[in-house]
Amino acid sequence: MNNVYVIGVGLIGGSFALDIKALYPNCTVYGIDNNEDHIQQALELGVIDKKATITELNNAEMVVLAIPVDATLKVLPEVLDNISDETIVFDAGSTKEDICLEVKNHPKRRNYLAAHPIAGTEFSGPKAAIKGLYKNKTNIICEVEDTAFKLQEKALNLFSDLGMRIRYMNPKAHDKHIAYVSHLSHISSFMLGKTVIEKEKNERDIFDMAGSGFESTVRLAKSSPAMWTPIFEQNKTNVIETLDEYISNLKHFKKLMEDEDFEAVYKEMEETNHIKHILNGIK
Amino acid sequence: MNNVYVIGVGLIGGSFALDIKALYPNCTVYGIDNNEDHIQQALELGVIDKKATITELNNAEMVVLAIPVDATLKVLPEVLDNISDETIVFDAGSTKEDICLEVKNHPKRRNYLAAHPIAGTEFSGPKAAIKGLYKNKTNIICEVEDTAFKLQEKALNLFSDLGMRIRYMNPKAHDKHIAYVSHLSHISSFMLGKTVIEKEKNERDIFDMAGSGFESTVRLAKSSPAMWTPIFEQNKTNVIETLDEYISNLKHFKKLMEDEDFEAVYKEMEETNHIKHILNGIK
Repeated sequence: MNNVYVIGVGLIGGSFALDIKALYPNCTVYGIDNNEDHIQQALELGVIDKKATITELNNAEMVVLAIPVDATLKVLPEVLDNISDETIVFDAGSTKEDICLEVKNHPKRRNYLAAHPIAGTEFSGPKAAIKGLYKNKTNIICEVEDTAFKLQEKALNLFSDLGMRIRYMNPKAHDKHIAYVSHLSHISSFMLGKTVIEKEKNERDIFDMAGSGFESTVRLAKSSPAMWTPIFEQNKTNVIETLDEYISNLKHFKKLMEDEDFEAVYKEMEETNHIKHILNGIK
Repeated sequence: MNNVYVIGVGLIGGSFALDIKALYPNCTVYGIDNNEDHIQQALELGVIDKKATITELNNAEMVVLAIPVDATLKVLPEVLDNISDETIVFDAGSTKEDICLEVKNHPKRRNYLAAHPIAGTEFSGPKAAIKGLYKNKTNIICEVEDTAFKLQEKALNLFSDLGMRIRYMNPKAHDKHIAYVSHLSHISSFMLGKTVIEKEKNERDIFDMAGSGFESTVRLAKSSPAMWTPIFEQNKTNVIETLDEYISNLKHFKKLMEDEDFEAVYKEMEETNHIKHILNGIK
């Protein structure tokens, strides 16, 4: 690998840049970002080697697109317009249906691989980029058959070198499932944070009583609104479905408490304890 | 400190036992538990020195009561019946109002200190006990003025040796505030787990897509139903209030999505990001 261009030098793109530089010492990693501060930070931190612009992409062997999913809809076609026939482009967006649809008929569709690395933290920006972020993480690839074989291989070799495990899925199924295991968690966390902050306005010192349990449950409420708003927008239908089911489960739990049916309350929790075994499977 | 009796040799009681043994090498720690397996495990793991029964408590300098809050209502008066005038008893229950009320008129009320160490993990039993669990954790003390001064001092010295910070609060305020920062988090997590597990019944492999965000948000759903059911029962009114507010916030978020008001969705998240600063304050 020689020339890699990372568009969006934040947590996700920056972490790819760091690992690519470590894996392929001869590779030059170029950074593109419309936030000039982020470019400067990424240069200073050694996350990228050089600054670049989108018009220079004809020189790229690989392009990593790691920007909010609304920006991806706009920028991905431009990227494809600017690359050579030998360039592989992959994105890292948390939605796949709209993005795949957007470039469905692009003449360079076969240069694009739709990817979603299930990795990240609640932080953002180049300072949040870390080495080894992708090790042992799942990468969901959509519509793999629509990417040219030789170009797929380049990206898949990188993912393999990074220690990722690959899951193939169609974009519709991806967006539906990810709504449950990722998008809903973020909303449940944000709304938990909101509920407690609202209460604190009237009841001082409430946070002094918070322990690690609260901290863990509310962690995702630190996440970037600029990243998450377009995700919720693009995955609106699925996310609303998960919210309906979540709210209905919460109402049922509340009803059991109002009815003082604590045997049923016990059972609800006991059945959900099954999550232990499932989570052990994730690691 | 010479003779300490720990009733309930699980995560909370067992962790007290381990630290007390480390702090006061001459102290004998006795364990009482109606689960004989747990007593055997605690002995084997060196969590306790000896097995005891409740009728031997007249020998105790300190009694740590760390059992589910429904059992506490029954066992605490029996403990007070069995101790000497010089014994300090404290509990570790996540509710305080019913427990304080239960012993309000007990002749040995002044031997009891109502405590709630904000510490713990999602695990339970003697194997979950760990050294240093209480370091830098908050311990909420209720009705401190109802405990004999000399006996308070013994417990407070222990908490100080453990590195805990103390907050004094009345039982009503404790139960109300803890509903927000602890009890609600558990329900939000359990219901998130339930929602995703239910979906998984029809959609296989969904958990294969789960990352650390889901794991963190759903962590508390591993918690013990035997511990949590009586907490929700005793704190019913406050917990239902938090659930009402949480459900209403979730519905509002869903409504904004249905109305495609993504500017407002952004704002909801941006305002809740404030939790970052609050959480930094917790540590």
